[in-house]
Amino acid sequence: MIKRIGEGTLVFENKPAVAGYASVVGKKEADGPLGKLFDKVIYDSRGGVETYEDAESALQREAVICALEKSGVRAADCDCVFAGDLLNQCAASVFGLSGFGIPYLGQYGACSTMAQSLLMAAVFVESGAAKNAVAVTSSHFCSAERQYRFPLEYGSVRTPTAQWTVTGAGGCVINNGGKIAKIASAAVGKITDLKITDANNMGAAMAPAACDTLLRFLKDTGTKPQDYDCIFTGDLGLVGSRILCDLLAQSGYDIRKNHNDCGLMIFDRETQDVHAGGSGCGCCASVLCSKILGDMERGKLKNILFIATGALLSTTTAQQGKTIPSIAHLLNIIR
Amino acid sequence: MIKRIGEGTLVFENKPAVAGYASVVGKKEADGPLGKLFDKVIYDSRGGVETYEDAESALQREAVICALEKSGVRAADCDCVFAGDLLNQCAASVFGLSGFGIPYLGQYGACSTMAQSLLMAAVFVESGAAKNAVAVTSSHFCSAERQYRFPLEYGSVRTPTAQWTVTGAGGCVINNGGKIAKIASAAVGKITDLKITDANNMGAAMAPAACDTLLRFLKDTGTKPQDYDCIFTGDLGLVGSRILCDLLAQSGYDIRKNHNDCGLMIFDRETQDVHAGGSGCGCCASVLCSKILGDMERGKLKNILFIATGALLSTTTAQQGKTIPSIAHLLNIIR
Repeated sequence: MIKRIGEGTLVFENKPAVAGYASVVGKKEADGPLGKLFDKVIYDSRGGVETYEDAESALQREAVICALEKSGVRAADCDCVFAGDLLNQCAASVFGLSGFGIPYLGQYGACSTMAQSLLMAAVFVESGAAKNAVAVTSSHFCSAERQYRFPLEYGSVRTPTAQWTVTGAGGCVINNGGKIAKIASAAVGKITDLKITDANNMGAAMAPAACDTLLRFLKDTGTKPQDYDCIFTGDLGLVGSRILCDLLAQSGYDIRKNHNDCGLMIFDRETQDVHAGGSGCGCCASVLCSKILGDMERGKLKNILFIATGALLSTTTAQQGKTIPSIAHLLNIIR
Repeated sequence: MIKRIGEGTLVFENKPAVAGYASVVGKKEADGPLGKLFDKVIYDSRGGVETYEDAESALQREAVICALEKSGVRAADCDCVFAGDLLNQCAASVFGLSGFGIPYLGQYGACSTMAQSLLMAAVFVESGAAKNAVAVTSSHFCSAERQYRFPLEYGSVRTPTAQWTVTGAGGCVINNGGKIAKIASAAVGKITDLKITDANNMGAAMAPAACDTLLRFLKDTGTKPQDYDCIFTGDLGLVGSRILCDLLAQSGYDIRKNHNDCGLMIFDRETQDVHAGGSGCGCCASVLCSKILGDMERGKLKNILFIATGALLSTTTAQQGKTIPSIAHLLNIIR
């Protein structure tokens, strides 16, 4: 069963576990600091298929195939897949996963979707609703640019606060027997809106959501940031990470020593021209399913927080001059 | 706890219950056969706000406010809201619900989203992850036409198989103490793709998904269609409903006597010029949260199946000539 403590942190009594994980990324991500840790790489933007969108679907498909293989669980034994992406109507997930025949529950939390999907998988496994559940998300630089910004062919100039959408996917198989890491507790985010409207500065829009969820979790659990080996945020990038540290400092918390951001880990900002860092549903998913869970498997990390943030805008709402509401979901993952 | 039976039907041992429900619709829906049963009506397409999208957000907001009032549960006591809509990045839900401060988990299952959200709410309440959970979805004719088809100003001609997107929202409050109806069991849908590509005939695309989920549920539970007072489908409309009946007949089941479709219930096809019937996330949500739950509350219905179907296409995938994968989630709701 799941126990609710404090304002609403979920504590998993049986601690659903990661039985397998895998990541598939594009060439630029493979050239970055984590390059050797990914399971598969596609070397051109289409990965041998006709459209960027199909390529993104293939990333998810491959991540699931690989995570299933590593976990020793067959697709036929999976009771549920929780998935999402940034494309309109979560199309990458649908076309990527339709072949598996696994009951499907589409999730949308923008770049927070990996944490949301993992949280769902943990709730389903803990409650008995699923024996094996899969969580997977993706993003693709080219499909995201086309949908959210400009067709690549325009060659438009990026602002310094802009982030670079990661081409990648990460997937996990969750069940009660997994040996890699356990999901101990979680906090569902609230929609946070500090009235930021600059769609080229999503880190700033998302940092308050991360701050809100983290503060609630620390209060509910009576823990301090230092109690965790590392606090990983999803894709705040350079600008958002600084804002998060500043916001937390106002509440008396210093996370600068044990905070890292997946958007800063995946690229080398000095040489890879990604401005404020990586972003996208596939950013924290592929970093979680390579470096972070890898370090947990190797025993280098024993107790972490994984906080994925999402900017809940659409091109329609941006064009209508609306603000960028954000959200952050948190998982406490232990060895 | 949740028990899994057969291939994967979820049986809720404590039977999470509907504590309150409400629907808000547009003028055309209010003029239809169920007109008197809705809680609120907006009489012009914008409902007094600036854009169709904002009007859709307002539908969700009002549905939640009203459902909370009727259930006697305060927003502050809600642990989770599961919501979704047809707009890109589920924008209607985000802007409609951001003011409540309820932890938010965005769902995307196209027109199946109401069943998916209710299923999630039931799993969260049953497992202890939430004491009170809210499920709400919406659609709006004008925002949907603009996004999926043509701006209304074009005055384009609709095909006979086309459906009319319902302007409406429906919301439910789920907890363990609700008196209106109980969620006894549920089945999560699989992505079904019979390679239909006509986006003006979504009933045909969705019927096989409804058939697949229903057949699995009947097999898992050892029940027959006649065991239920009524089998409600979401928005198959006239064409999809006929196909569903034909498909089930091939498996030896006759549901013609106790089947109804929310897309056929909400409009009068003779006089309201909606072609094959109503559709959209708000269609089955507003019919469930008016006529169906009302009849359960009054004791007229005691044991029903609610099967909401979704066509998982986007304009991008449609323009790329891809097929329309579909899904259907099922709930068994009892008095």
